[in-house]
Formats: sequence, structure tokens, C-alpha cells
Amino acid sequence: MANRTKRGSENLESLPRMTRTLRLAAAQMGPTQRADSRAQTLQRMIAMLDKAAADGAGLVVFPELAFTTFFPRWMMERQELDAFFERAMPNPQVQPLFDRARALKVGFHVGYAELTDDGRRFNAAVIVGRDGRILSQYRKVHLPGTQEPRPGPGFQQLEKRYFANGDLGFRAFRAPPDLGRAVMGTLICNDRRWPEAWRVLGLQGVELVCCGYNSAAFDPYGRNNEDERLRTFHSTLVAQANAYMNSTWAVCVAKAGIEDGAGLIGGSVIVDPNGRVVAEAKTTADEVLVADADLDLCRHGKEKMFDFAKHRQPHAYEMIVRQMGAVAPD
Amino acid sequence: MANRTKRGSENLESLPRMTRTLRLAAAQMGPTQRADSRAQTLQRMIAMLDKAAADGAGLVVFPELAFTTFFPRWMMERQELDAFFERAMPNPQVQPLFDRARALKVGFHVGYAELTDDGRRFNAAVIVGRDGRILSQYRKVHLPGTQEPRPGPGFQQLEKRYFANGDLGFRAFRAPPDLGRAVMGTLICNDRRWPEAWRVLGLQGVELVCCGYNSAAFDPYGRNNEDERLRTFHSTLVAQANAYMNSTWAVCVAKAGIEDGAGLIGGSVIVDPNGRVVAEAKTTADEVLVADADLDLCRHGKEKMFDFAKHRQPHAYEMIVRQMGAVAPD
Repeated sequence: MANRTKRGSENLESLPRMTRTLRLAAAQMGPTQRADSRAQTLQRMIAMLDKAAADGAGLVVFPELAFTTFFPRWMMERQELDAFFERAMPNPQVQPLFDRARALKVGFHVGYAELTDDGRRFNAAVIVGRDGRILSQYRKVHLPGTQEPRPGPGFQQLEKRYFANGDLGFRAFRAPPDLGRAVMGTLICNDRRWPEAWRVLGLQGVELVCCGYNSAAFDPYGRNNEDERLRTFHSTLVAQANAYMNSTWAVCVAKAGIEDGAGLIGGSVIVDPNGRVVAEAKTTADEVLVADADLDLCRHGKEKMFDFAKHRQPHAYEMIVRQMGAVAPD
Repeated sequence: MANRTKRGSENLESLPRMTRTLRLAAAQMGPTQRADSRAQTLQRMIAMLDKAAADGAGLVVFPELAFTTFFPRWMMERQELDAFFERAMPNPQVQPLFDRARALKVGFHVGYAELTDDGRRFNAAVIVGRDGRILSQYRKVHLPGTQEPRPGPGFQQLEKRYFANGDLGFRAFRAPPDLGRAVMGTLICNDRRWPEAWRVLGLQGVELVCCGYNSAAFDPYGRNNEDERLRTFHSTLVAQANAYMNSTWAVCVAKAGIEDGAGLIGGSVIVDPNGRVVAEAKTTADEVLVADADLDLCRHGKEKMFDFAKHRQPHAYEMIVRQMGAVAPD
């Protein structure tokens, strides 16, 4: 009887922890061909939303530039380019996804190409609450590729041409109670390879990082021998280590497979604050991964090994902001 | 005949690459008990040096605080403490290691407790050239543990009590030709979990990071359920990811096993600039790992994905130096 009472009080104590468990879904998307219609792509996304909701997910993470093919691989003129951009979020073309999510009471993260009223273009993402309200917007800071098309055959990587560097920084925010009051932040694709980006989120106590990506499975210029396996390994490695070093959950989600002949890695993962992969995509097609994230698992790291206030030495890091490129000793 | 000529010129072109291949050895040390004599420990180190030299290594990496047991696990008074510190490097007690290395024409890295003439104490390491000359000194920046002993039974972690934070920053240096002119840097133990430390070395074009460690295999206070396997995973993960994100070779070397009842993880690794483990310790005892490091393998990452001058966005990283602890949104 004493034991039962004790157990009862333990349960009471653990109640606040229970509300901090959030069921996450990573909605990896297979390839989207340039000829695919917007409506077709949206239907695939809604089907994954339905599946994730049926699995009990509270938040579904879609990849970078989820509504279209990865268009920066082609040199295009402005008019042609505009078709890939959203002038508002939401907008009539994507409204059905927002409507379905709200009806299912599921929050989601989705990446898209943003064209602002004043003509600026960003590689962006929003996180939408379970009530359909936009909770945060992020604009990709680290743009890979080139501004000018590279000569020769093969695909381009023209993100530096088509997008401006994100001007919103790495802003974490506190999600509402129905998302566990998680401290959340967004990174997009290449951002995830930069520990500085994770650390700025970590310095805001981030507990859940959403990151969509389109990452080439092989060199678009055929100029090196990196293969798909190595590139997938890199993608998983940076998610694991940066999640561990910032004691955060991370959901990293690919658009994957062969788009008009260009290969994209899969390897979508849900990673815990110890850097362990708790769910991993098995395909390069549409695939929903689900995992329960106990947000309080972040506390162990944040209060011990990575108690920043106790252990960081910012005076020794000045070079990180003072210097952009590497300068080797003679 | 035309083909042979072509191959000949290719060989000429690749000659400078060949001189940039350095055979590395990680000299993992098993436990050193408090009662072990200095001479005994030095003999073990010299035996590993001999083995590494016989295997053709040009540089041998010994762990953190290699000459003694991991003494910060005990509360000690000054006089008792002093026995674990070196007042000069080299000094008569460690001279036989320096002598043997010079005779073998092998460079080495070794960690030790430093007591300066003016009474300051650091957790330090030196890298010694193949000619016996000290090429660089480093003093550990990130000190884990506590300043005051923690109550209760079990071991202490008193690095914050016994050492001052390193005052030399993270300085990379260019090694001499007989070490491949590698850009080298040192981290010590806990430093390796801080991406800022690796990045400051990365911003100096580092090609080889030496890092010794003594990392607990289980919580010294028994206050959590992390196990040795998870802790070894963390150790390997941060070496791999930070090597990849800075396109550098890394040699991370443990003092391992059970010291006077306190467990230390093994898991010494040599990691390539892709973050791949190329050699890994199988034991928690004295063990020499050897791998050939093609220093020019660093170039691919440094010139492409991690071309810092092209892709970093330091203005977005200000929080890293402006803020020490984490501040979560309301």
C-alpha cells in the first residue's frame, strides 16, 4: 500500500513530463519532376499528412522546396523562374494542405521558394501550428552553389543566383502547449552542415530543429568520386553530432530520388538529443517516419555536459565572427 | 610509349602529394593507477613509441595527462597535487621519451599537467617534431567538472579547481616538411565536444587535429544511466562530425580502462576529412593504431562544400561570441 502510494505520487510528478512528449513525423518526399503539376505534388503531401495523422503525429516535417522540383539545377529566365515561387504563404495553390492539416489538428513544417512583395527571393520555410496559424518563418542563411552558371554539361546549383541570403537569422521560438511548448528552430539543407547555425539555435535552448533538404546524390559536374552513400553518411553525421552538441531533437527530411535525371539522397532521420538516430528512411520515395520525442530528454545534456553558462569560453571563439574565410599559417 | 610518357608526367605532378602523406599513430594508453611509478608509465609509452616507429609512423599521439593517472578525480592538497605536475617540458622524468623519439626520428603529441614558474596550472599538451624540438604548446580551454568537491561518495571531476582555462587560444601551426607541412592544431578532451574549438582551428586551415582525452565511462556520481557505449559513441561522433565540417584529419586518443575503480572509455580513433573512421581501438588497454593520412584529402572539402570564404555568414553567428549561456524564449 505504501508502495502504491509512492508510485501514485511519482506518476503525479511525471505528469508535466508526459505533456512534453511530442510525436514527430518526417515526411520524406520522393522526386518531383519538372513536368509534375502543383496539384499532383500537393496530393502526395496531403496523403503523407493523412498517414502521419493516422499514426498520431502532432507535427509533420516536409522537406525544403517541397512544392516543386529542385529548380536551382537549371538556368532560367525570370518569368520561367517565377512559377516556382510563392508570393504568399499560404496561397490558393497550397491552401488545401493548410486546410487538411488544420482539420487533422496536425502542425507542420514546409519549405518553399518565397517571392516577397518587394521582389526579394528567399529559400524559406514555415512552421504551422495545429490550429493552422503560422508560428514562425525562416529564410535559409547558407546558400550553396554559384551565382553564375558553370560551363559544361550537367546540372547547375544556382541557389546563390536565385535566392538572397536569409535575413531573419536563426530564431528559435516557443511552440504552443499542443506542441509541448517545445523551443523550436528551423535550418534548411546546407545550413545543417554549419555548426554555427546549430549553435545559435542551441544558445536559445532549442529542443527541436526542423530541417528539410535537397542534397545531390552525386557531383552534378561529375568532377569527383563522392558517392551517394558517402553523401548520405555526411548528412546523417551532421544531424547526429549537432543534435548531440546542442542537446536537441532534430528532424532532417529529404526530397529524394531522381528528379529529371538528377539524383538526390534520401536518408531522412529523426535524431534524439544524444545524437542517436531513432527513425531513418529506408527508401528514396515518399515515406513517413514517426517517433516519439520526449522533449525533456534535452535537459540532461543542457544541464550537464553542455551547460553553456558553466562551460563555454566565448572569448576564445572571436575568430568565428571576425573572419569569414580560412587563413592558414605560412 | 605515348601512354608511358603521360603516366610519367602524372607521377611528377603527384610527387608533391606523396610528400603530404603522413603515417599517423594513435597511442591509446590503458589505465595508470595512482600507485604506478612515473618510470613504469614512461616505459609503457616508450614501448608504444617503438611499436609505432616500427610500423613506420611519423607522428605518435599520446593522450591527455599521459604521464599520470587522471588525478582530478580526487580532492587533494597542494603538496600532494604537485607530484602530478610538470614544471618544465621536457624535464628529467620525461626526458627518456623525448630522447627515444628523437633517436627514432618520430614526432609526438603528449598531454600533461603544467605548473608554470609563476604558479599557474594548466591542462596542457605539446607537439614535438621529429628532431625533438617542441613545435607547439596548447592549454586546454574547456575545463569540465567543478571547482568545489561535490558531496557524496564516488569520484570527483575537479579540473575547474586544479587548472586555469587555457590562455593560448586555439592556435594552428604549420609543421615542418618531415611532417608533411601539415597545418596542425591541438584540442584536449572536453574541447572536442565544442564545435567552436574545431571551427577556430578550421579557420586556420587545419589539416590534422590531435586530441587526447580521459573520459568517464560512467557517471562518477551514479546519477544517470549513461553507459560506456553511449559515451564512446558521443566521443566518436564529435570527432567524426567536426573533422568533416572542418575538412581535417583528426587523431583522438584515450587513456582508457579502470583507474583505481574509476572507468574511462577507450574508442581512440583516427578520422579522415570525410568524417570516416579509418582506425579504431579495439581494447581499453595500451594499443597502437596506425593509418596513412593523405593531407591533400582535406582539399576537396576546403575547396568545395566548406569553402569558408564563399559560404560562411559570420554576421549571423554573433550570438556565439556575444552570449555565454543559453537563453530560451518565454
